[in-house]
Formats: sequence, structure tokens, C-alpha cells
Amino acid sequence: MIISILFYIGIIAESMSGALAAGRHKMDLFGVFFISFATALGGGSIRDVLFDHHPLLWVQSPHYVLVVLVSSLLATRIAYFINRLERLFLTLDALGLAVFSTIGAKIIIGMGYDLTLAMIAAVVTGSFGGILRDLFCNSMPLVFRKELYAFVAMLCGALYWFAFPIFGEEIATLISISIGFLIRMIAIRYKISLPTFIFEAKEKL
Amino acid sequence: MIISILFYIGIIAESMSGALAAGRHKMDLFGVFFISFATALGGGSIRDVLFDHHPLLWVQSPHYVLVVLVSSLLATRIAYFINRLERLFLTLDALGLAVFSTIGAKIIIGMGYDLTLAMIAAVVTGSFGGILRDLFCNSMPLVFRKELYAFVAMLCGALYWFAFPIFGEEIATLISISIGFLIRMIAIRYKISLPTFIFEAKEKL
Amino acid sequence: MIISILFYIGIIAESMSGALAAGRHKMDLFGVFFISFATALGGGSIRDVLFDHHPLLWVQSPHYVLVVLVSSLLATRIAYFINRLERLFLTLDALGLAVFSTIGAKIIIGMGYDLTLAMIAAVVTGSFGGILRDLFCNSMPLVFRKELYAFVAMLCGALYWFAFPIFGEEIATLISISIGFLIRMIAIRYKISLPTFIFEAKEKL
Repeated sequence: MIISILFYIGIIAESMSGALAAGRHKMDLFGVFFISFATALGGGSIRDVLFDHHPLLWVQSPHYVLVVLVSSLLATRIAYFINRLERLFLTLDALGLAVFSTIGAKIIIGMGYDLTLAMIAAVVTGSFGGILRDLFCNSMPLVFRKELYAFVAMLCGALYWFAFPIFGEEIATLISISIGFLIRMIAIRYKISLPTFIFEAKEKL
Repeated sequence: MIISILFYIGIIAESMSGALAAGRHKMDLFGVFFISFATALGGGSIRDVLFDHHPLLWVQSPHYVLVVLVSSLLATRIAYFINRLERLFLTLDALGLAVFSTIGAKIIIGMGYDLTLAMIAAVVTGSFGGILRDLFCNSMPLVFRKELYAFVAMLCGALYWFAFPIFGEEIATLISISIGFLIRMIAIRYKISLPTFIFEAKEKL
Repeated sequence: MIISILFYIGIIAESMSGALAAGRHKMDLFGVFFISFATALGGGSIRDVLFDHHPLLWVQSPHYVLVVLVSSLLATRIAYFINRLERLFLTLDALGLAVFSTIGAKIIIGMGYDLTLAMIAAVVTGSFGGILRDLFCNSMPLVFRKELYAFVAMLCGALYWFAFPIFGEEIATLISISIGFLIRMIAIRYKISLPTFIFEAKEKL
């Protein structure tokens, strides 16, 4: 129940982040909706396609499409407001990241796969939405440079994997979400990032 | 039968539009073929992957690959000619859009899905080819800013959904294609677009 | 056995090429791993998704993920070294291309599909990794302009198709890999490319 509410918060926050990105690139209303859809539901869709887990969430429960639609249209109305509430928004986004990643890992573990794939599923679910958003907006994916974003997703996958056999599904989910959320907030606050690999050479290969 | 002819016209028009885009980006002949393939057959392929509808059209009927190949090579020969026939070409493209979208909706309704998903399938089938074309050419997808493009796709999906139980498959298909085509032509003629969402703020989120 | 070794060489070479591309775009360590993964395993994954051939290689054998991880991290350590060994690296990459393409064709022929689809599977397997790498790095795919890259992939697919019924699986694989590798090396050495289609006109369509 709590997890379901957190999931909706994540969908709404990701939809709005997609809408704002579309607005920065001066798209029409369809573009806004499309980018929101890709940001909010794209990560889970790609996970399900890669792991052959059908039907996709929004195919099975099309009301998620309406949630995205309403959130994205709302975002176009309250864009400047969202921008002023930056701190709140980053918090919701961090929550969404932790929830999506944990649920991603849970689904894949439920299909019988092991730790490596649980972590990959967590990363795909948690960060591919943002990658698609940036790809369709024709900019370099932010995720590859943002404070521990994908690292937090990977961690949520691992946490759930280790906590599940000990504490059971519900507690494991809450542990994974809480710790992932906390670490992401700390990373934002103190601007902690993974080391960067900079390689300057002529484009040979 | 008519629908089948219209479908081939759509495939050919989309292949040529892909080839011209590749030519604008100075690609080699493989690039030309690849972009044409993605433009003409990419939308339907992504629809089928998302809805787990296998085998894909061109896997089942590989002769479509040859249609794309011939159309794209032909386009490199008659590029300046196509460009002078701009009006004809935009008309064929509008026809392709209406046909692809309607067929996309039809397939998904045939799988037992409802209105929301029929509209999404129509949009994916009708506009994802153009999105892939622009993505692989590393430019901002035109579809997000072009006159009612995706809107027409969505409309075709909805029209078919409502007309199918009343008029049966064939008439519903023709209604959906005709109205979609007409609205797209009017939108081009009078430069009607969806409202645009412009959001200028520092890239914070 | 030989083919298995060649396949690992291909995975390692493609991972490193992905890591260097990520380094050129100043990504963090996650970005490096992600781009390496997409470059090394993305082509085969897209082939399997398009042809509904599940589970994907790395889902069935997750140790490939570790091979990519180690190769990509290693590449960040020895980047300048790799760059000085450019000739060796291009050779490994050419080997990888021939191996990937041949194996791609083999899998699809094993599923009962014919020549056209075998060639497409070869191209997707051999060149989509590089396309994804460039896409995620937000640059124009090099493959569309590089010396016979995709052409060699297509050729490997056709060679395997013709050689398989005559010589059996193993010999056909070695013939296809050797000839593909050779032609790619010759194309690099003498800078042989497919003809390019350049089309300069105002962006109308």
C-alpha cells in the first residue's frame, strides 16, 4: 500500500521532469506527453522487453497512461512553480528513483534471476527513463554524469536481493527504498559523484 | 486490397523520406538503407515489440525489406526530382501516416486491447518511424513539432475504434484513413499546429 | 572452441571501444560501464528482441556482464596505451565484427529464417552495438560512414548462409569469419568505403 503510493509519486515526479525537459526544447503538447511517457514508463518498459516480461505495466493497466497525461499537462501549467520548488522536486525524484529500482529488482528476482541481473534490472528501471528523455531531447544523457544516480539504482537492487530472504518482501522493499533514497539525497546535498573518466585523444577508434 | 496498395505507398514514401534524411547527413549507402528501414518499418516494429506481437511484419514477410531497399536506392537517384515534387511527396507521406496509424490500431484492437492502447499503438506505428529517423540522424525529432503529425495518428486510432463495431473492418479502415489524411493535409495547408510548451529556465532538474 | 575464444575477444574489444567513447564524453564510471555494455552486448540484444529469441545472451549467462565490467574498467586504466596500439585494436575490432555478424546469422538461420533475414541479423548483431554507443554519446553513428563496416557484416551473413549447407556449421563459421575479417582489414588499409549519398536541400520533408 505505502509502496503503491510511493510508486505513483515516482510516476508523477518523472512525468513532470519529462514535461519540463520537453518544454526546454520547445516541443508541442504531443512532444510533452511523449517525453513524459518515456521518462516515467520507459525504464520499466525496456526492462520488460529485455527480460521478456509481458504484458508491460501500461499495457496491462492503461490507467498509468492517463496518470502520465494528467501529470505532464499539469506540469506545463505549473512549470515555474515546480522550478521554484526545486528542492521538493529533487526529493520526489530521488524517491521515484529508489522506488522504481527496488520494484525493478523485485520483478526480476520474482522471475528467478540472480544478483547480477537484479542489479541490472534495477539500473534499467531506475535510470533508463531519464536516458530516453535526454536521448529524445537530443542531449547527452545526464544520468551518466549525475550524482550517484545509477549507482543508487544498482545499490537498491543489491539491497533488496540481500534483504529479501532475511526479512521478507515488504520489509526488504522498505529497507531498499529508504537506504537508496537517503544515499541519493546525501549525494545531492554534498555533490558526491562517481569518478569521471576523461579521455582526450583524436577520434581514432 | 485498396488498403494493401495504400500500405505499399506508405512504405515507399517513408523509405524515401528516410533516404533523403540520410543524404542530408552525408551517409554511405548502408546508412541510407538503414535509415530508410527504420523510418518505414521501425514504427510497426516498436509497436510489435512493446505489445509482444511476433513475428514482426518484415520477419514474416521479408519482401518488405526489398521494397525498402529498392525505394531507398531509387530515392538517391531521383532526390532532386522528389524535392521538386514536394507537394506530391507530402501528400504521400500524409497518406502513409493515416494508413500506418489505422493499421496499428487495428492490430492492437485485434489482440483484444481497448481505446487507450489503440490510440497509443496508432501513434507508435504512425510516428515512431520518423522519430527513429531523426534520432539516428542525431537531430531533434521533427514529429514533436510538426503540424498535428502525432495528433492525426492518435485520431486515426480513435476513429477506427469507434467505427469498427458500427461499420465493420473495411469501412472503418477507410473512414479512419480518409479523415486522418484529410486533417493532416489541412494542417499542412494552413500550418495548424498543437500549442507549444516553451519553458526557459536553467537546467536544474 | 576457437569461435568461443574469438567471441570473447570481440566482447572485450567492443567493451573497450565503448569505454574510450565514454571517456571522450567525460562520463562517470557508470556511464563508462553502460556504454561498454551497449557496445558489446547491445547488437545481439536488439537482434534477439526483434526476432523474439529469449532469453538474451547476458540474461542466460550473466558472466558476460562481468567480462564487460572488467574490460571497461581496465580500458579506463590503459586508455593511452590502447590508443598507441591503434593498429592492434582495429584488428581486434575487425575480428569482433566478423565473429558477431557470423554468430548473429547462425542463430537466425537456426531459427529457420532465410537469407534476407540472416543478412539483417548479421548487420544488427555486428553493427548495432556501435550505433547504440554513438547514439548514447549523442554523436552521429560512425557505422553509417565507416569503411565497409556494415557491408562486411552483411557479407558474413550471406557467406555463412551459402557455406553452411555445403561445409557444415564449423567450417562455414570459420570461412565467414576469415573472409569478413580480411575484407574489413583491406578496407581499413586502403580506406575503401561505400559510395556516399550527399543531398543538400532545404529541410522540407
